[in-house]
Amino acid sequence: MPISATDADALDRADSLHPFRDDFDLPEGVIYLDGNSLGALPRATPGRMQTIVAREWGHDLIRSWNAHNWIDAPTRVGDKIAQLIGAGPGEVVVADSTSVNLFKVLSAALQINRGRSVILSEPGNFPNDLYIAQGLQALSGGRVELRIVERERLAESIDENVAVLMLTHVHYKTAAMHDMPALTALAHSRGALAVWDLSHSAGAVHVDLEAAQVDFAVGCGYKYLNGGPGSPAYLYVARRHQASAVSPIAGWLGHKRAFEFVDEYQPAPGIERYLAGAHPILGICALEVGVDLLLRAEPALLHGKSQRLCTLFAELAQERCGLYDIEPILPPDPASRGSHVSLRHPHAYSVMQALIGRGVIGDFRAPDILRFGLTPLYVGYRDVWDAVDILTDVLRSNTWQLPEYQLRHRVT
Amino acid sequence: MPISATDADALDRADSLHPFRDDFDLPEGVIYLDGNSLGALPRATPGRMQTIVAREWGHDLIRSWNAHNWIDAPTRVGDKIAQLIGAGPGEVVVADSTSVNLFKVLSAALQINRGRSVILSEPGNFPNDLYIAQGLQALSGGRVELRIVERERLAESIDENVAVLMLTHVHYKTAAMHDMPALTALAHSRGALAVWDLSHSAGAVHVDLEAAQVDFAVGCGYKYLNGGPGSPAYLYVARRHQASAVSPIAGWLGHKRAFEFVDEYQPAPGIERYLAGAHPILGICALEVGVDLLLRAEPALLHGKSQRLCTLFAELAQERCGLYDIEPILPPDPASRGSHVSLRHPHAYSVMQALIGRGVIGDFRAPDILRFGLTPLYVGYRDVWDAVDILTDVLRSNTWQLPEYQLRHRVT
Repeated sequence: MPISATDADALDRADSLHPFRDDFDLPEGVIYLDGNSLGALPRATPGRMQTIVAREWGHDLIRSWNAHNWIDAPTRVGDKIAQLIGAGPGEVVVADSTSVNLFKVLSAALQINRGRSVILSEPGNFPNDLYIAQGLQALSGGRVELRIVERERLAESIDENVAVLMLTHVHYKTAAMHDMPALTALAHSRGALAVWDLSHSAGAVHVDLEAAQVDFAVGCGYKYLNGGPGSPAYLYVARRHQASAVSPIAGWLGHKRAFEFVDEYQPAPGIERYLAGAHPILGICALEVGVDLLLRAEPALLHGKSQRLCTLFAELAQERCGLYDIEPILPPDPASRGSHVSLRHPHAYSVMQALIGRGVIGDFRAPDILRFGLTPLYVGYRDVWDAVDILTDVLRSNTWQLPEYQLRHRVT
Repeated sequence: MPISATDADALDRADSLHPFRDDFDLPEGVIYLDGNSLGALPRATPGRMQTIVAREWGHDLIRSWNAHNWIDAPTRVGDKIAQLIGAGPGEVVVADSTSVNLFKVLSAALQINRGRSVILSEPGNFPNDLYIAQGLQALSGGRVELRIVERERLAESIDENVAVLMLTHVHYKTAAMHDMPALTALAHSRGALAVWDLSHSAGAVHVDLEAAQVDFAVGCGYKYLNGGPGSPAYLYVARRHQASAVSPIAGWLGHKRAFEFVDEYQPAPGIERYLAGAHPILGICALEVGVDLLLRAEPALLHGKSQRLCTLFAELAQERCGLYDIEPILPPDPASRGSHVSLRHPHAYSVMQALIGRGVIGDFRAPDILRFGLTPLYVGYRDVWDAVDILTDVLRSNTWQLPEYQLRHRVT
């Protein structure tokens, strides 16, 4: 066995991130390994929500747009997220969902690179991102084309028709991480732009958009940013592109002078042009609590711990569960991994149900994947050890074959 | 004077909607006449939010998508809103913002009526709606055209090029209400579809989409529906059109089988195809509390009280403030009015600031409009009487000319 439970405890004691665990309100008896699907609840969030709801909305009512600066919430929280992903002030804004934001920035990239028509991506990219590109293709009446090629052929496929390379930094199933700087540089050298989806990376692993000269990015608020269920998302537009394109969804709060209520749309000069409707205040303020917590952690420590947790999980799983049809999917180079580990098992759905019954919460991804998110901010080494121990027991005792775990899944 | 303060009290006592006032947590000493901009806080909302945040998110975590049925929240609350606007089950879904939803349904209308290219609207429509149409026009590369004609010329302008008539049911400034059934029927008779924005009407005045045979509609959650700041919005697609168009924002939660994670987008069969990203759970659940409250009120009582409050406000303002440069803007026919009253004043911004200083909260709309929302669910006749009394005093004593009220406005 790679390490003992006692060793894992010692690693937790030596981990300077370990105290962050107390900033989260995790239920007793649960090992929560699904922060890459829905991040845990920061202890400060319920109080903040009560203030927003009872005082700012209930008591101060409409005046809160100024008195509590609701109006600047998307850029205020955007600027904080910028610090997590190596962007500058005024390059990130919180708005809408990842889907809607991807629609906006893909459209912007196509405006800027208007002599070209292809969006290049890979099969098995988070399907949402492919769907959004397919939607743009349909809307364009055929002018835009989504081209999908296998990961190994991406580099050679960036030809003179490719307007934009659209990829997810960390793969939602395998946790494989693209070399963002290299692929972005390659895209640029061939006259293409790059759009990156950071949903499975930002907040857990190193992201530096400026160093990589990334053109556009989007990301999710409810995973490693701990913003709550269906939290608003964010988008990034490099400053150099901000004046060159507009949002296809030309909503009033992206207007240069929204409150003059003129009939003609004029985009705001900066990143605010990517806003559309009224800011989702409850969601943005919940997200801000999660982002504030992350900003207190050292990014290099987060990424290092993430890699060690993943390596430990995979090694323990291999060592202890290898006999039971478990096959870890682990990108070989630790520097090219995100913060989750996936294990294949032919009955992954039932095994995950049995694990959840034992208090180990991960999730299932069709058809045969058990996925465990190892959020470095609140998951410890002992958690990993215990989770694999319980997994081993579930597999050894065959409890996953109990009828209650054999139900067809709906959402996991 | 039309009535006395004592008369107003008597009207409140006789009003069977008056007890709803106690279901809202309105601050002491405030007369809140801005529910058409941000609805008041239902007393049940803070408790519901605590449950969602602490128990559903914090304790049950990812399991809540099933255990608390988060996954169905958009259609569950959509079906409730449907009851407020004369739509059927499965015709309304809660999602995104009004802006994003308008983008979706306009695009859908243009898909269905693809031989035509014009979106017809009026100048001074809520600017957001014009902007969204302008954005679609830009995105289409000129295939789509927004045509704007004065209200009186709308009917004659529905020619063979008009794909869709896009109007707001109640005007955000003047409170003038379009004849939705007549204009929709006219549009249909000329081969056009109709998209209605219900933001300033649903929840306060009578709306019956089915009776009017409306094709598409959108509306806002944070006004008369009391869903909170930046609440998610809703959209309606008549069942007969649901299979005929897709959302241009083809997000994963609008997929037929979202959790199978296949690469090809296939729209869900019903209204769910208009979903995109993960459901904004905090916002949807806050909205549900407001909608549940409204469902307990008799729609005909709401509309009748709305008309009486508006008439009273306008008559009192005319009678008592007519001397002080106040000019009510009131559509002559009570049956063609929304639930707010606008008054012109050359220094409307400063007057509103002075009113707010005295506890009467309305809002200012550029350049010269004092706007007072008279939400029938929680505004009473005595509120109206007192508000006009304070307005009279502010104007008579010239307190609006004090330096603190002369600041330039930002958001009101």
